[in-house]
Amino acid sequence: MKLCRVTHAAFEQPRFGSIVGSTVQVFEAGVSLEAVPTSQSSRTLSLEEVKLVAPVMPSKIVCVGRNYREHAAELGNKMPEEPLLFLKAPSSVIGDGDTIELPRQSERVEHEGELGVVIGNRARHISANENPLSYVLGYTCVNDVTARDLQRKDVQFTRAKSFDTFCPVGPVIVRDINPLDAQVVTRLNGDIKQRASTSTMAFSIPFLIRYIAAIMTLYPGDLIATGTPAGVSPMKHGDVVEIEIEGIGVLRNNVN
Amino acid sequence: MKLCRVTHAAFEQPRFGSIVGSTVQVFEAGVSLEAVPTSQSSRTLSLEEVKLVAPVMPSKIVCVGRNYREHAAELGNKMPEEPLLFLKAPSSVIGDGDTIELPRQSERVEHEGELGVVIGNRARHISANENPLSYVLGYTCVNDVTARDLQRKDVQFTRAKSFDTFCPVGPVIVRDINPLDAQVVTRLNGDIKQRASTSTMAFSIPFLIRYIAAIMTLYPGDLIATGTPAGVSPMKHGDVVEIEIEGIGVLRNNVN
Repeated sequence: MKLCRVTHAAFEQPRFGSIVGSTVQVFEAGVSLEAVPTSQSSRTLSLEEVKLVAPVMPSKIVCVGRNYREHAAELGNKMPEEPLLFLKAPSSVIGDGDTIELPRQSERVEHEGELGVVIGNRARHISANENPLSYVLGYTCVNDVTARDLQRKDVQFTRAKSFDTFCPVGPVIVRDINPLDAQVVTRLNGDIKQRASTSTMAFSIPFLIRYIAAIMTLYPGDLIATGTPAGVSPMKHGDVVEIEIEGIGVLRNNVN
Repeated sequence: MKLCRVTHAAFEQPRFGSIVGSTVQVFEAGVSLEAVPTSQSSRTLSLEEVKLVAPVMPSKIVCVGRNYREHAAELGNKMPEEPLLFLKAPSSVIGDGDTIELPRQSERVEHEGELGVVIGNRARHISANENPLSYVLGYTCVNDVTARDLQRKDVQFTRAKSFDTFCPVGPVIVRDINPLDAQVVTRLNGDIKQRASTSTMAFSIPFLIRYIAAIMTLYPGDLIATGTPAGVSPMKHGDVVEIEIEGIGVLRNNVN
């Protein structure tokens, strides 16, 4: 099942739906696990007549730093004892095909390809006998775009990670992949820059969901960016960056 | 004008409105500058029959660290050259009268009383001849509750600042105060712990709004927490913490 959000002249707001062949079954309800199995499709549209936008508009984006050993090493950082969490502003979200804008405040903006976990059910204090993955709506591609110079200067990651357009997400949310062993590949102008299996994460996805939900309530549509493999590199005007995850697809953005 | 959000059996969702005497004029539209002057009140309710909740549900909470010199000094920190920004998760918001819950992960949770700026119009790249304050809906009290031990341990402020219930906001949003010289007072069990005028901020409110809007688009309802004066101190079970700002009122929360 490929879940998406689309805009169309008939709707005031983007609508959540499911891609079936060359059509989109548009749902009445919003992004949540409850919506998916029960949703009656209100109408069917051709993929050609809609525009796919970011498949989620999260109430928060929780990111995990230094979750792949080789990436921590390439930036000269030690591995954290607990997950290193930070937030990206939801206003930084863009969709597949949108343009990453390089801000004048930074001299070095880098790609960070990541597996994104989209929450499907409200999660708070997940008990030991529950499977954290049961709270997941599905998985998507995320580019955790980072102004590396500002990240080093500010210490807090907030500014470096939250510029408008710094969070490409998409193109769709997929439910039926194995998130514990998926290849995450980042290409810059066609050259592979990052490639790793999510099986090499320091903190696994179930661990991360449980850890985060013990701090802050996760709501349907919330996005967890699970960390980036080694190979981050700077992007410049005119570049094309692609994040590909097997079973999900390619998130492609121009840089300007 | 005192703006508020209320719950009532007649509404599925909390509604935005204005307090007039002992009544609330409930607005049809959401929290924005456009809503305020044009809103037709859909109905008038007695203050007694509604519950006031947090006056905003922001899409993001942008906070400013070390914006009062004596507070930076009391924690042994230098003053930053530029505003030190961080984000709190919107899921941490509670209203006046709600309970701050001390998480088991921390041994030391402290109050930080602050002036909160609520955005009223979408703001991005504010030009030099515009007044940043023209984007403001109004002002409110914020308690930027912080797990001090985790803040020091994690380096990133995210976990320490984003536990559920760690962002009391309210009780109302007021438009007609002078935000550039307002007294912010924090009391713990009746004892004054923090007291300063916003005139002693290192970075002024107009400067902060312009600085943030050059990084990320601010949306109606977004909240800027403008930093805390000296005098932060730990809270324990059974405490009552109050943030009072002249012209706005008292934000009072129990600690448990």
